[in-house]
Amino acid sequence: MLIVQKYGGSSVADATRVKNVANRIAKTYQQGNGVIVVLSAQGDTTDELIAKAKEISSNPSKREMDMLLTTGEQQSVALMAMALAELGVPAISLNAAQVKMHTSRDYGVARLKKIETGRIESELYRKNVVIVTGFQGINRYEDLTTLGRGGSDTTAVAIAAALNADKCEIYTDVDGVYTADPRIVPNAKKLEEITYSEMLELASLGAKVLHNRSVEMAKRYNVELVVRSSLNESEGTTVKEETEVEKMLISGVAGDDNVARVSLLKIVDKPGKAFEIFNALGKNNINVDIIIQSVATDGKRNISFSIDKDSLEDVKKIVEANIKKWGVAGVEYDENLAKVSVVGAGMVSNAGVASKVFEAMYDADVNINIISTSEIKISILIEKDDMKRAMRAIHDKFNLGN
Amino acid sequence: MLIVQKYGGSSVADATRVKNVANRIAKTYQQGNGVIVVLSAQGDTTDELIAKAKEISSNPSKREMDMLLTTGEQQSVALMAMALAELGVPAISLNAAQVKMHTSRDYGVARLKKIETGRIESELYRKNVVIVTGFQGINRYEDLTTLGRGGSDTTAVAIAAALNADKCEIYTDVDGVYTADPRIVPNAKKLEEITYSEMLELASLGAKVLHNRSVEMAKRYNVELVVRSSLNESEGTTVKEETEVEKMLISGVAGDDNVARVSLLKIVDKPGKAFEIFNALGKNNINVDIIIQSVATDGKRNISFSIDKDSLEDVKKIVEANIKKWGVAGVEYDENLAKVSVVGAGMVSNAGVASKVFEAMYDADVNINIISTSEIKISILIEKDDMKRAMRAIHDKFNLGN
Repeated sequence: MLIVQKYGGSSVADATRVKNVANRIAKTYQQGNGVIVVLSAQGDTTDELIAKAKEISSNPSKREMDMLLTTGEQQSVALMAMALAELGVPAISLNAAQVKMHTSRDYGVARLKKIETGRIESELYRKNVVIVTGFQGINRYEDLTTLGRGGSDTTAVAIAAALNADKCEIYTDVDGVYTADPRIVPNAKKLEEITYSEMLELASLGAKVLHNRSVEMAKRYNVELVVRSSLNESEGTTVKEETEVEKMLISGVAGDDNVARVSLLKIVDKPGKAFEIFNALGKNNINVDIIIQSVATDGKRNISFSIDKDSLEDVKKIVEANIKKWGVAGVEYDENLAKVSVVGAGMVSNAGVASKVFEAMYDADVNINIISTSEIKISILIEKDDMKRAMRAIHDKFNLGN
Repeated sequence: MLIVQKYGGSSVADATRVKNVANRIAKTYQQGNGVIVVLSAQGDTTDELIAKAKEISSNPSKREMDMLLTTGEQQSVALMAMALAELGVPAISLNAAQVKMHTSRDYGVARLKKIETGRIESELYRKNVVIVTGFQGINRYEDLTTLGRGGSDTTAVAIAAALNADKCEIYTDVDGVYTADPRIVPNAKKLEEITYSEMLELASLGAKVLHNRSVEMAKRYNVELVVRSSLNESEGTTVKEETEVEKMLISGVAGDDNVARVSLLKIVDKPGKAFEIFNALGKNNINVDIIIQSVATDGKRNISFSIDKDSLEDVKKIVEANIKKWGVAGVEYDENLAKVSVVGAGMVSNAGVASKVFEAMYDADVNINIISTSEIKISILIEKDDMKRAMRAIHDKFNLGN
């Protein structure tokens, strides 16, 4: 088998951990597998480099920032190659320029465009474990770029896709994907398998195990992802197109308590009005989540939408600058909200799921502010203080703990 | 003018120093010059990275070591580009792969082969200060290499040669090249100019201002070198082919107290014997300095040579392994020696220099162990404890303090 393994910064934070990870890699290699390893920078290295830059400039050039930060992963991969050599495992480290991981030109938030496979393939042919820098690439100017959040996971999936690897293992500090956050729902259960779509919904809903970017890429190229812990031998959760276990009604419950709602009241009901509003928000990089539009009465409508609370100040400015142009009679903001979501591929064919959610909320005395449903997800906006109670109630109602 | 400036690790050790150096670069740029800057890794970065590697492996792969160490200079150049941008000076950092600094394949001790000038030239054309990583290159496998000792100086000179720069300024923590080490000879005087050949002799004799490799390259490509301090505005010393000041008899006195002597006694006098011995030493990477062969008596000769004391253990092993084969009757080692050398292009045409040196040694009551002379240099091997006294006596005898 050809296996891609990705280890995050905390898994390689110091010499002891580097050696532990090297042992795990060696085991996979000695079982006869081809192994490609993708690494992040060690522990706090990236933060330390950012601090160094800030000492010199409060607003450093993004190009130079990427030139600086990419040294972090290069150090990790070199150290890991040394650790493997100590174990008698032939290994070679490669940076983004050596692999030729082409990205868009955008420094700091580059998108991977094409990974050349020649160098990696020839090193695999020589029976080397190939250790590749995550999070980075080169753009058309041969400048180094970084991929932004979730970058190393994305690198790993992209390499697995480019080389048609049998699987891509993402090592992290949790055992896998759970039916809910175990810190909130104590009897949450680890899932053996989950589909890409379910994982995408869970990831975007606050289950911070895998970054959406990497799941999207895995789905597009049909890369089998395994999320598992670098600290134990637990099997982890497999993310793939179709799960082999019987399709579960619900795979998990996720909560996000950093949500705000904006309601634009009594907007003159003209075609293109919603486009005008959300286009203005999009241009300013505001990610709008749930949108609810009321039925028009007297030629007027209300439009409500939820956003990440961190965007609220930006949204307020945009709304105030456009309030006349849009023909909005009034605005309401609510920043003490949480979103609880129930995700499951089995939901499509089962009309009873929504009513069960409502029943659970009624039993738990939780007031629902906004509801949004999709084929595999039901999200409700509720008061922030109700979030944990709501999650537990839903988890119990669907018997996810067994 | 096109000027190459090289700053060592201590000149860029922290944010304050980086900013100071940036100010100096900005001034050169604002005077209308094209500026290329070559930097070493910050302060102790390289030592810290070596320590990290040693935690993982006592004998790390040289390839991976270079992969690790080259991150140090990449950090320096990125930080410097940020510091220049803060001063409103457009700047761009480039690493060895981006410039395409081709080296031999030898990791850790690579030799520069060819520097491509395209990227640097196009950045200069855009009026950017170009900040380049010293000490590193890429080999035919596109692997990163390091140049070993004196590497960053060599990078600077090579870039100056490749781009036909008007001068190459080497910034260091001393004001320039002195007639002797001012810590030993208090009235030593700074030289305004010195020839490449004199500098080569002085550099190889323990005046640790410039590494020989960089001076050799400067001589070969006729690059005008300026050695000056990054801490003050002093003019420094210019190293060039012909000095304009009247040719001095003597340019300086250098001392090296880390010398050992090996004497092979009563060797059967056969043709090729000396070749056999020094070939064996050379193959084992022993640098032999002065060689003295006695006149044969009774078909036997003595051969003495001096070496860096650090090589003595290796030499002992080689001598012991070959003592029969070489037909050597006895061996003497002396490890408490120092070498004092008098260097000057004017010496060629002046037979009195040697006798003046002997007179100075006689006056100072210093016993001479071995003497070696070349066109521009006289070296004497003396007891280590006599070194400082001998240097001062020679310095005074030739009136170098005025």
